[in-house]
Amino acid sequence: MSSYQRAPETSQGLRLHLNENTGGCSPAVIDALRALTAEDIAFYPAYEEVERETAAHLGVDPSWMLLANGLDEGLHLVSALALRPDAKGVRRSVIPEPAFEMYAAATAAAGGEAVRIRPRRGFEFPLEDIREALGPRTALLYLTNPNNPTGLTVQPSIFASLAAEAPHVTVLVDEAYIDFGGESALPFLDAHRNLIVGRTFAKAYGLAALRAGCLIAHPDTLAPLRAMAPPYSLNVAAAAALRAAIRDRDWHDGYVRQSEASRQMIYDFCDARGLEYFESAANFVLVRLGDDAAPAVRALAGRGIFIRDRSAQPGCAGCVRITAGLSAHTERCLTALGDLL
Amino acid sequence: MSSYQRAPETSQGLRLHLNENTGGCSPAVIDALRALTAEDIAFYPAYEEVERETAAHLGVDPSWMLLANGLDEGLHLVSALALRPDAKGVRRSVIPEPAFEMYAAATAAAGGEAVRIRPRRGFEFPLEDIREALGPRTALLYLTNPNNPTGLTVQPSIFASLAAEAPHVTVLVDEAYIDFGGESALPFLDAHRNLIVGRTFAKAYGLAALRAGCLIAHPDTLAPLRAMAPPYSLNVAAAAALRAAIRDRDWHDGYVRQSEASRQMIYDFCDARGLEYFESAANFVLVRLGDDAAPAVRALAGRGIFIRDRSAQPGCAGCVRITAGLSAHTERCLTALGDLL
Repeated sequence: MSSYQRAPETSQGLRLHLNENTGGCSPAVIDALRALTAEDIAFYPAYEEVERETAAHLGVDPSWMLLANGLDEGLHLVSALALRPDAKGVRRSVIPEPAFEMYAAATAAAGGEAVRIRPRRGFEFPLEDIREALGPRTALLYLTNPNNPTGLTVQPSIFASLAAEAPHVTVLVDEAYIDFGGESALPFLDAHRNLIVGRTFAKAYGLAALRAGCLIAHPDTLAPLRAMAPPYSLNVAAAAALRAAIRDRDWHDGYVRQSEASRQMIYDFCDARGLEYFESAANFVLVRLGDDAAPAVRALAGRGIFIRDRSAQPGCAGCVRITAGLSAHTERCLTALGDLL
Repeated sequence: MSSYQRAPETSQGLRLHLNENTGGCSPAVIDALRALTAEDIAFYPAYEEVERETAAHLGVDPSWMLLANGLDEGLHLVSALALRPDAKGVRRSVIPEPAFEMYAAATAAAGGEAVRIRPRRGFEFPLEDIREALGPRTALLYLTNPNNPTGLTVQPSIFASLAAEAPHVTVLVDEAYIDFGGESALPFLDAHRNLIVGRTFAKAYGLAALRAGCLIAHPDTLAPLRAMAPPYSLNVAAAAALRAAIRDRDWHDGYVRQSEASRQMIYDFCDARGLEYFESAANFVLVRLGDDAAPAVRALAGRGIFIRDRSAQPGCAGCVRITAGLSAHTERCLTALGDLL
C-alpha cells in the first residue's frame, strides 16, 4: 500500500521544505485561539457561521462547499467515493506526474489503483496522454493547479474539456496554491457536475497545523461526500482560526506579495548561475541543481536550512523545491546555497 | 445513505443532550492553547511527544496506538477498511441496537450494509443473536462499552470470545465512556488480533470540540489503518490540548466523581417518582418517561435545558437521555423536570 510519508519532524531551523507559510499566520488567528473558552473546547462545534463566511469569501453559496479537516481529508473523501471497488473489481485513478504524493496514498487507501502519466519535456500539460489513460474503469483524475512541485499552471478550461469528454470520471482540481497565482476552475463547476475543486487554508493563510480545507462543487456532487464525512471533522480551533484568517485580507495580500518577490529572487539567483528553474505561480520554485541536489540539501540541513530534494519524482532528476516565503528567509537560503555551489 | 445527523446548533443554555463535559475542560488545556505561536499554527504538526505521552497514559506502546481526529475518524477508518466491497459484492457490519448512530453512518460511508440486532428485554447483551448474525459476509462488529444510550456494561471477556469465534470479523469495541466506568478490553488485544479498542478524549477530558481520539490494537492490526489515515489528521491545537488534559489527573478525577454523584441524583429522582431508568457506567442516564418524553424534552428546551429524546431508538420508546455532569447542572435539570412531570 502506498502511504504518504511524513517528512522528518524538524522543529528547529528554517523550514523551506513543505511549502508552509514562513511568515506564520495572521495575529488575528492567534487572538481568535486565545479567545476560546473551556465551553468552546468541551462542546461539539457549530459550523453555521464559519461555513457562511468561508463560502462568501470564496464567492460560492454554502451549499456548494464542504469544509474538511485539511484538504487531505477532502482528497481522501473524494477518492474513497470515486474509487470504491465494485463487482467488476478495482477502479482506477489517473495521476499526471510529477504530483503531490497524497494522490497515490489516497488512491491506495480507497482500494483503487493509480495509473501514473509520465511527464513530458518541460512539464508541458500531457492532455493527449491523459485522454488516452481515461478508460472505462477510470473513476478519478487528479489535477493540480498550480502544480506541485513544478509551480506551473494550466488554463482551467482544459480541465473543463476533460470533464466534458469523460463524464464517468470525477475530475478533482487541487487548487492548494491558487492564492499565489493561476486561474481557478470555480467558474466551470456549474456546467460540469463531475468537476470538484479542492482548496486549503494551510498555505497562503498559514493554517497548516490547524487543518482547514474544503471541497467546492455543485450541491448534487457534494451530497454523497457530505454524507460520508464525519459530522465534526473541522475542529473548533480550525473554525475560529479560519474565520479570523480570511477576514485579515491585508495580512494575506502582504504575504502573497512577499512570496512573489521571493520567487523573483530565486529566478535571479538561478539566472546568475545558469541553473534551470521553472517559473512558478505557487509559493515555491523547482530548481534543477543536477548532481549537486542531494549534497546541497544535506549541507543546507547541516546549517539548519531545510529545502526538499525532489530528485525521485518523475521528470525531476536533480531538482530541489524551495519554499518562497518571506524575502528575508529566501535571502538567507540563497546566500547559504550560493556559498555551497 | 444513512448519514449522521448533527444535533441542532444550540449555543445558549444547559447542554445535557450530547454527553459533553458540562464542566468544560481543564484550565491547563486553555493554557496550552494560549501558548501556541504563529509558527506552531503555520507548520505541519509533530506528533512524537503527544503519541508517546498518550500511549503511556493508556498503558500501551506507541506502536499499538493510532491518534485520530476524534474517535469518529477512527470509526470511519476501521469501517472503510473492513467493509470495502470486493468481487463478491458488499460486506456487512453487525450493530447490536440501541447503538451510537455513527456506526450505521460509517457503514454506509464505507459502502457496506448494516445488520441491526434488536435489543432484548432490559437491554441484556444479545450474545446469541450476535453469534447468529455473524455470517460469511460479515466483516465488522461494532460494540460499545459502556453502551450509549443505555450506560450498561458488559464483561470484555465476552467480546474476546466473539473475536475468537469469528476470526474473519473485526471486532471494534468503542470505549468512549470507559473513563466513567466499566472494564476495558485492552488486556485482550494481544491475544485477539481482530480486536480493536476505540477511545476518545471528548467526554471525561472535555475535548469534544478539539477532536482527539484514538484506536488501540496490535501493531499488525493497526498497520493498514495507519497507512490509510491522512498523515496530519490530529491538528496542533488538539495535540497540545491532549497533552495538557491527560497530565491533569486531578481535574479528570474530580469530574468523574461529580458525574457519579449526578447519576445518583438522577436515580434518586426516578426512584421517588417510580420512573424506570438504567444504572449507568457512563456520564449519562437513560430514563423512561413514557408518553411524557417528547413534551418534557420540548418544555425543558423552552427553559434553555437540553436533554435528548431517544424514543426513536430500538427498545427506547419513551426514553430520554440526560447527561450526568456537574452536580449543579444535574440539579437544575431535575428541578425543572420535576416541575413539569
